[in-house]
Formats: sequence, C-alpha cells, structure tokens
Amino acid sequence: MSKINAFYAQSGGVTAVINATACAVIETVRKNRHRIANVYAGHNGIIGALTENMIDTNKESASTIAALRHTPGGAFGSARYKLKGIEENRAQYERLIEVFKAHNIGYFFYNGGNDSMDTAHKVSLVSKHLGFPVTCLGIPKTVDNDLPVTDNCPGFGSVAKYVAISTQEAALDVLSMAETSTKVFVLEVMGRHAGWIAAAGGLAGTTPEDPPHIILFPEIPFKKAAFLKRVKECVKKYQYCVIVVSEGACYANGKFLAEAGTRDAFGHTQLGGVAPVVANMVRENLGFKYHYAVADYLQRSARHIASAVDVKQAYAVGEAAVKFALAGKNGRHADHQTCFGRTVSMAHRRGATFTHRQQGENGAAAIHQQRRIFDHRSVPPISAASDSR
Amino acid sequence: MSKINAFYAQSGGVTAVINATACAVIETVRKNRHRIANVYAGHNGIIGALTENMIDTNKESASTIAALRHTPGGAFGSARYKLKGIEENRAQYERLIEVFKAHNIGYFFYNGGNDSMDTAHKVSLVSKHLGFPVTCLGIPKTVDNDLPVTDNCPGFGSVAKYVAISTQEAALDVLSMAETSTKVFVLEVMGRHAGWIAAAGGLAGTTPEDPPHIILFPEIPFKKAAFLKRVKECVKKYQYCVIVVSEGACYANGKFLAEAGTRDAFGHTQLGGVAPVVANMVRENLGFKYHYAVADYLQRSARHIASAVDVKQAYAVGEAAVKFALAGKNGRHADHQTCFGRTVSMAHRRGATFTHRQQGENGAAAIHQQRRIFDHRSVPPISAASDSR
Repeated sequence: MSKINAFYAQSGGVTAVINATACAVIETVRKNRHRIANVYAGHNGIIGALTENMIDTNKESASTIAALRHTPGGAFGSARYKLKGIEENRAQYERLIEVFKAHNIGYFFYNGGNDSMDTAHKVSLVSKHLGFPVTCLGIPKTVDNDLPVTDNCPGFGSVAKYVAISTQEAALDVLSMAETSTKVFVLEVMGRHAGWIAAAGGLAGTTPEDPPHIILFPEIPFKKAAFLKRVKECVKKYQYCVIVVSEGACYANGKFLAEAGTRDAFGHTQLGGVAPVVANMVRENLGFKYHYAVADYLQRSARHIASAVDVKQAYAVGEAAVKFALAGKNGRHADHQTCFGRTVSMAHRRGATFTHRQQGENGAAAIHQQRRIFDHRSVPPISAASDSR
Repeated sequence: MSKINAFYAQSGGVTAVINATACAVIETVRKNRHRIANVYAGHNGIIGALTENMIDTNKESASTIAALRHTPGGAFGSARYKLKGIEENRAQYERLIEVFKAHNIGYFFYNGGNDSMDTAHKVSLVSKHLGFPVTCLGIPKTVDNDLPVTDNCPGFGSVAKYVAISTQEAALDVLSMAETSTKVFVLEVMGRHAGWIAAAGGLAGTTPEDPPHIILFPEIPFKKAAFLKRVKECVKKYQYCVIVVSEGACYANGKFLAEAGTRDAFGHTQLGGVAPVVANMVRENLGFKYHYAVADYLQRSARHIASAVDVKQAYAVGEAAVKFALAGKNGRHADHQTCFGRTVSMAHRRGATFTHRQQGENGAAAIHQQRRIFDHRSVPPISAASDSR
C-alpha cells in the first residue's frame, strides 16, 4: 500500500491566524514525510472532501507554505457547512470515507470550532465502522474564545488586541472633540454568546475613568434604564462615554438588541447592527450626539495587528496536532480519536494569548502622557473676562 | 515688552497624525526661543482662547512633547466651533484679541480644515484692525484630502492606508467563506463630499478581479439598477463582491443614501449608516447574505497603522508653519497673513502621501501567493462520484 496522506480542512468563520495553523500542519507533515506523504487541503472546507475538490499542497513550494503564516482569511477556503447526524445522512459520511479511501487519507485534521469538533468525532466513528479507520484530530480555532476544554483559542488574541487598541484610539478621538461634538461612541464587536471579545475592549483602560466606560456583554441581560443612567453619569463626569457592545447583547428575555431575523447554515441567528440600536437609544433618551463603528470582519481579519502570541499559538496547535497524530498512531493505522482537548493542552498552556503591545514606537508612554496633558497645566487667566465666550 | 508667545489650536475632526503637527510646532518654537518664548495651546481649540483656557506647553518636558508624535486624537482638545462673520459677532473677535493681547500672543497657528482657514483669515484681519496685529497661519489637516491649494493633506495618508489594508484583509476573509456564507461585504468609509478615502479602498487590488469590486463615490450619483447588476455579476464571476462606500454616497438629486437628519455646528448634515442601507438593498433585491462594517472613527484614529509618510508630512507642515511665521515676520511684528497655501507647498510637494506597506513581515508576497493557491492546484478526483455531495 502506498504511503498514507492527510486531509486538512478549515471550517467556520476564519481568523487572522488560521492560516498559521495550516502552515504548521503542512510544514510539520513535511518534516515527517516518511510517515505522511502529503497533505490534501479541502477547497472550501469539508465540502472539498465531499466533492473531491482538494488542493495538493505538495505542489506548493516551501516559501509559499511559509507565507501562509502571514495572511488572514482561509487560504484554502472555509465553509459554514455542518454534516447531519449519522442516522440522518449516512450516505454523506460514506461518501467522505470513499474519498478518503481513494486518496489513501489516514489522517483528518479539522481546523474549526465546536461544530467542527463534532464533525471530526462523527467521521472518526463512521470511518471505524466502515472498516477504514481514520485518525481524526480537531484543531481549535475561534475568535469567540469559547471552545470547551481550551483555556484560550487561536484567533481570539488577535481580535482582542484589535478591539483594545481600536477602543483606545477611537476614545482619544472622541475625548478631544467631546465639548462641541460627539459625546457618545459605540463600538460593536463580535461574540455571539461569549463576552470575551467585548471584554477585550476593557484592556484599553488602566484606571476607572479610562474608556471604555461601559461594556455590554451577551451574558449579562441588558437593562435600559441602568444603561442610560450610566451613560448620563459618564458624560457628566468625563465629558464623554465610550461603549463597547457585543453583537450578542440581549434583554433578560433572551431577545437580542438587534436581530436581523436570518439564520445561517447551523441555524444560528444572524446578528448585526446592535451599535446603531444602542446609539439611537442614547440619542432619543439623552440627546447626546453619537458616533458608532461596526468592526465586523475587520476585527477578525486584522492580520496587520495580530497578536504575536496568537500567531505563535495558532502555529503551535497545528504542529501539535500532527505530532499527536503520529504519536497516537504508534504504528497502528487504526488509532482514531478526537483529541481536541489534548491537542490544546499540549500547545496552549504556555501563558496568556494576549499581549497588549504598545502602539507604534513609544505608543503606551505617549498615550499616558497625552492623558496627563489633557488633565492639563493651564495658563493662569489674566485678561478681563476669563469665562466669556 | 516681554517676548512674544504663540497660540496653537486644533480644529475640527482630528486625525491619527494631528498631534505630530502639534509636536512640530512646539519643538520648532523651542528651537527658536529667542524669537518665540512659549506656545500656549487652546484647550478644545479656539474655545480655549475665547474662554482663556490655555495649556502652557513650556510646563511639559521635551519627552512629553516628543511623545505627541505617536498618539491619535487631539492632545489639547479640538472643537467643532465656527466663529461667525465679523459683522455678526465682532465682540467675539475682540475677545480673542483681548486674550491674545493679555498673553502677548503674536502668532496664531490654527491646525484645521477649510473652516479653520477661514477663521484664521478673519482673526488676521480683525487683529490688524484692532491695532494688535497677529501673524495667523493655517496649518492643513483633514482626512478628507479636499483642502484647496494642497496636493494632499496630513491625516489622509493614514486613513488611506487603513482603508486599503482593511479592505484587503476583510476581502480575504469573505472570499474564503463565500461558497457557503457571506457573499457581499460592504465597508463604509468617511469622505462627505470627497471620494479620496473611498478611492483608497481601490489600492487593495492590483488586477481587475481583485477586491474591492465596487466603489461608491460621493461625486458620482448612485444608480441603483446599475449597482445591483454589477453586484450580481461579481458574485457570479468571482463568487463574492466587496463594496467600499463613502458615507456621502448620494442619488442624482443630491439626497444622501443614508441621512441621519441632524446637523453639526457648521450646518453640515450628519451622516452615518449608508453601509446597512446598501447591504439591505443587495439582500432585498438579490438575496445574497451580506456583512457590513462601519469604520467610522476607527479609520481616522488608527495611529497603529499610520502611514510613515503621513506622520512625516504632518510634522513637516507644523515645522514649516513656524519657520514661515518667523521668516515672514522679518523683525516686523505686524506681518500677518494666512499662508495656508504656501505652508503646504513648502512641506508637501515631496512625493505621494501614501505608501502602501506590506502587511507584517512578508505580507504582500504572502497575499499574492495565497490568491494563487486559491486559484488552485487540484488533486485529480479518483473516487467513484466526484461531484456528489
């Protein structure tokens, strides 16, 4: 029998660093060519396997593969596509194994979130049942930072850095204009059911008066009156109010503040537009001039400001997945399991994902000093009427 | 009489680099202490002069002033506040001169856009009329890149870089998900009446099929049917469609696509929310899944990705303004003029503002290679049914 190959696929929403994981999987396999001959990458995720539309990564040079470490998005294409339950659609699983068999694929590396881990597990079960056992490994990825077992997820650190720095930068802008212009700024961030990304906005501040002044989490029911009271207080006390709101912010009854009414392939409600809802609420009730930003895909694709630790971890989980597959195999082709948790623990528990680096050359010190200037060292008034205008 | 002082104020919407100009003004004055004793900065722009609320920059250390080069926002506070015509509100101008006189201010450096240049000119006239002539110099600043006389404006280059890179990054994200998820992505950018910022989105592409596929300019009337036709074509041809839309995009009759109905202190209509309008139009007519981002203040405060050339130019115009003031004076305290155009020509005509730097270490090459992978080098199908799913 010819040498065993591996199949790698990206799944679900991509991140600024998922390609670093792809890079690691391919590079680590190349270092173990005596064990795994090639990595076939699914074009558009698992769909690439079902339609037998795969990319032969052996055709790519070492420098092309190395370059994957630096790009956002999913280089091979990802997919929001969930395999149904085995009972409901056995044919689809059989088709998958048929393709794996045809290309002698003994390893399936599935790079995604919770739904993908579920799929990897099912494929593992089916492959064993059909007599062509495939070692299935889930490799964690999600900007939401909410995968079970993990302590942090590749993709999150970079979004966190983006949100923290964007909040800080925009807040300096708003503060400088607040007397005569915008007083309330709302930044909408991702995180459907997990407030990690919204919480990252809080990294922008070091003291209680620092922005963001309000963070609206999906986990904490939104209370309109309390919210408006706090906005009013902030504007009175600090002249401005910066709010970071999760796309998943919702009322006590579970209703999202902004619900587009559509659902994706996994049946999840498609959200968007909570920032204008919150901003208009402020305007209607308090009359403050507002601005809002919706970071949307910009936040999860911002490779230009990716966290160095996140890039390193994204690479590490890919590398660990291949090593684990090879170690777990131990000469037994039939050793298959979904080792999500173990992959993670091997690569991940090395420290915090997030390093809040200074902006530019002297950024952190500069911002500290700027705030101090703003606090300010006045010229004593000496003209006749010092408060006329 | 004691030594002459200078007054520096920031005006209008701030930029990622306006503080670099403040830094230059103060540092250049410090190099000429025998001519100008101190720079008083207006707290919240011109309002700081009217209310005699000024910051004594001599109290700040050299390192604090140097740090200004690295922060976004307006370090001393800016203002959207327009002095009325001299005939309408002579008292206000007289008040300004009274404060200038009290603090022996012989130089007025006003860092802003078109409205600020107008104010600087008026102050110059009134000061002469009132027998306390002040040398008034406008220093250009605007993200919109639309100031008369200038060939490019400090602040624009950094927004252009932000928009180009954000468009490119988000487009890679959308492309990788397009088969099963979002097909249309809309990025809303600033530029009320000038399409320079929207056009900067175009720097993301190098070939006709590269994103953005559509740019909606404020200068070109929006035609719904043609727009929808093009979106449909793009999705058919490229699988996805990336649209950059200016906040000022409008119909042939001049009506903005999204009009909030409010006006700022200068009587300008306050805009916002054109992205959801465009996105919903696509959805209602073509049914494509969309995402949209509203960059808002994030784009103009993104100091973390500021253009190095822009920072350099922002510093250069501040330096040039002080040098020009000193040269124009020639020992005559009374030499006053609004030298906007000349300041600009001195500092600015040194090349293009925008340098589209590669992302990360090997970013440009990586993105090129990623697109090529995506074009892709397939594994020949060898299983029984290659197109089943």
